[in-house]
Amino acid sequence: MASKFYAVVIGAGPGTGRASAIRFSKAYPVALLARSPESYEATVEEINAAGGKAIGINADASNPDSLKAAFETINKEFAGHKLAAAIYNASAGYGVKPFLEVKLEDLDRTIEGNIRGLFNFAQSTLPLLEDAVSSSRFPPTLIVTGATASIKGSARFACFAAGKSGARALAQSIAREYQPKGVHVAHAVVDGVIDIPRTQSYNVNGGAEDGKISADSIAETYWNLHTQHRSGFTWEVDIRPYVEKW
Amino acid sequence: MASKFYAVVIGAGPGTGRASAIRFSKAYPVALLARSPESYEATVEEINAAGGKAIGINADASNPDSLKAAFETINKEFAGHKLAAAIYNASAGYGVKPFLEVKLEDLDRTIEGNIRGLFNFAQSTLPLLEDAVSSSRFPPTLIVTGATASIKGSARFACFAAGKSGARALAQSIAREYQPKGVHVAHAVVDGVIDIPRTQSYNVNGGAEDGKISADSIAETYWNLHTQHRSGFTWEVDIRPYVEKW
Amino acid sequence: MASKFYAVVIGAGPGTGRASAIRFSKAYPVALLARSPESYEATVEEINAAGGKAIGINADASNPDSLKAAFETINKEFAGHKLAAAIYNASAGYGVKPFLEVKLEDLDRTIEGNIRGLFNFAQSTLPLLEDAVSSSRFPPTLIVTGATASIKGSARFACFAAGKSGARALAQSIAREYQPKGVHVAHAVVDGVIDIPRTQSYNVNGGAEDGKISADSIAETYWNLHTQHRSGFTWEVDIRPYVEKW
Amino acid sequence: MASKFYAVVIGAGPGTGRASAIRFSKAYPVALLARSPESYEATVEEINAAGGKAIGINADASNPDSLKAAFETINKEFAGHKLAAAIYNASAGYGVKPFLEVKLEDLDRTIEGNIRGLFNFAQSTLPLLEDAVSSSRFPPTLIVTGATASIKGSARFACFAAGKSGARALAQSIAREYQPKGVHVAHAVVDGVIDIPRTQSYNVNGGAEDGKISADSIAETYWNLHTQHRSGFTWEVDIRPYVEKW
Repeated sequence: MASKFYAVVIGAGPGTGRASAIRFSKAYPVALLARSPESYEATVEEINAAGGKAIGINADASNPDSLKAAFETINKEFAGHKLAAAIYNASAGYGVKPFLEVKLEDLDRTIEGNIRGLFNFAQSTLPLLEDAVSSSRFPPTLIVTGATASIKGSARFACFAAGKSGARALAQSIAREYQPKGVHVAHAVVDGVIDIPRTQSYNVNGGAEDGKISADSIAETYWNLHTQHRSGFTWEVDIRPYVEKW
Repeated sequence: MASKFYAVVIGAGPGTGRASAIRFSKAYPVALLARSPESYEATVEEINAAGGKAIGINADASNPDSLKAAFETINKEFAGHKLAAAIYNASAGYGVKPFLEVKLEDLDRTIEGNIRGLFNFAQSTLPLLEDAVSSSRFPPTLIVTGATASIKGSARFACFAAGKSGARALAQSIAREYQPKGVHVAHAVVDGVIDIPRTQSYNVNGGAEDGKISADSIAETYWNLHTQHRSGFTWEVDIRPYVEKW
Repeated sequence: MASKFYAVVIGAGPGTGRASAIRFSKAYPVALLARSPESYEATVEEINAAGGKAIGINADASNPDSLKAAFETINKEFAGHKLAAAIYNASAGYGVKPFLEVKLEDLDRTIEGNIRGLFNFAQSTLPLLEDAVSSSRFPPTLIVTGATASIKGSARFACFAAGKSGARALAQSIAREYQPKGVHVAHAVVDGVIDIPRTQSYNVNGGAEDGKISADSIAETYWNLHTQHRSGFTWEVDIRPYVEKW
Repeated sequence: MASKFYAVVIGAGPGTGRASAIRFSKAYPVALLARSPESYEATVEEINAAGGKAIGINADASNPDSLKAAFETINKEFAGHKLAAAIYNASAGYGVKPFLEVKLEDLDRTIEGNIRGLFNFAQSTLPLLEDAVSSSRFPPTLIVTGATASIKGSARFACFAAGKSGARALAQSIAREYQPKGVHVAHAVVDGVIDIPRTQSYNVNGGAEDGKISADSIAETYWNLHTQHRSGFTWEVDIRPYVEKW
């Protein structure tokens, strides 16, 4: 019997998380993880209503026990399935402030949400992804959502840049260790404002049409990363609106 | 009546050029350009035999007149079509030598094939791509094939690195100017040996299975770049075998 | 009366810390901070014996209270002095391990020593450096010691890369905010093994003479960064042995 | 008898070329090369009047014969001297234009001045620098002047970016080949407007004091690169005004 596979998305709130869950649900059952049900409930319902299969689980990536419990739940719900794709989309600590106004707690929050969270999520998922290498149709994939701050420390973005750059380096190290084992690890530098309810009032790129990034377009790029042949892995893509200044 | 579109590939020999032509021929008639017919003849035949449409034209990217003539031919052959995708895959001057053994002619050849050729090809295609913006299904796209040397000047690769890095900078400048007009400009850092007849005997990555890049996988990544939504353009991807050391 | 100035080095143990303290002591009294007296005692003695002025203080950069106490001591010892140069040379968590063998505590330690420590040290020193802008001979300077891992996530260096890359991004953000105020912020990518007692047995670069980095040469480069004119600040230097592979 | 040494600067006009010649003349006789005497005459006179030794020679870096003749002259004028430092400061083709308005001649000019010129100059000087390795006080040094465009292809800077990025890659390749032989190769990313007569009317950085780069400060940084110990070579520095936006 052919193996069965699933995908997991952490940070499954509106935007990239939601859109990725929907995109990957066309091929796999999907587990949506977030710190509170409001982040994933509607998406879970939407996927199930559309004939896909989704479950939502409360989980905090920065807490290894919370993650462990989440994967136990997944293991029961998707019994006999292997992990085809894991998307790390959690984040924290965005916030533009003069450096001296930032508190150590702000820094800790961004480290929790970006570096420690990815660390825990990668430790939970890499053995599962590796286990799927020999049987999955596409190379099992870990995708990490980054931002402009992943590669640039802009003024007044000290904490966010530290968290995002740290996460990128972590992902890159993992890529170099795990790609030879057949697990594809990719990082996306999302360089622009994503078009979600929360950003609706933001005036970006002079209000140009499509001046904010469609989360669906990010999800499509993630899917395309996932389906790459192992002889041609992409480690990093940048994603930005055609009108973005860079 | 809906507009009709075509794609053009220059440097259409075995490998990325051939594979891209075949991949894009599933959606568009394709013009294959190369300096000699041996480079494109078989591919043109293969595409036409498979029910696609392809033409082959002798052209030298480093010569503006040669390019001009090629586009006149295209204009006749694909009358009424607009340019949806242009792929610059020409190159020259690869060759590993101690710096003092390199001749100025070697440098000139790599500049011809990488920088001047791209310059001419971009000047020929950008107005055509821009003209297609309002009617094409996907944002008109210029894709440039790069290499490791596009971002790294390794020892004994002085010329090739100069040519490839110069071409990358040229493409990036064009991306920043043309993306706001709706033309997608993307650069691929192909970081590995491509699996073609010429490289069959190369022992790379310890002879690992899929240790050379499948040209089809590059072409698939190019197609995915082409079909990106304009709110989420990727400027640069790296492409390398899972076992490649980087 | 002319203002008087001092320098502070944290992570003042053998190697870059010690050498920087000695180099800067030729121009300023210097405070050497480290977690234990063994790290700085000999250097303090050496500087004072040579006619310079140095004090040693126990301090842990990852602990804001510890740092606060240290600067109160400095304030008493160097009463009436302004801060001309601050060098962040603390680190932690170097260690080459397969990713799944790394513990969350390992990650936390590297974050403490690299990101949180720099955060605290920068918050302590930036107001003092800014206060010296109008009176100091050279632009007040914050120099951060980085490593290869600051810009590259090598396999099995996941934690160290996260810490070092996060610290680099933090420093870069601070540079962009503080340079316009006249404070020079610089980051050094030390890409090689430093020649200290602990590394004496390391066989690097085939045992080539000068194949390990002289800490004095790093200190000299730091001094040259410090003395740069404000119209020509360098944000980043790489430092590596002539024989290093990169 | 101790060996005697000299320095050579090409592109010796006002700005970095002139300032470097003056700075290095404090340690070495200096040969100033430029395409026309107006570029170097005053500086040659100034150095000689100040008690240094300087000669000026007409030379075009893009022409190997012209360079060859120049080094023959140097060989006569500085008979018995070895080459301690060579500075490539020639350039060409700066100019901000929409891509379609750029002519192939513009591209060729920037390639001549940046890539081919450096190629020829490096081929002329590397054997001389290598010959000085065993006897010179400081590691013989080749320094290449770059610009923002060396690492960024900004919109409407297509040609300049191609030339500068190509030159940087060339220099990097040479660095990787020649540093193990003891020759220090360094590249400077000069990221700002230099304060010279031609730029006096430019309003940069809001007219801030020291908002343009002092050429003397660049020369000082070059001197500091030259005097680095071989165990701690810097390949690349960026140089920008404290108020520059980056």
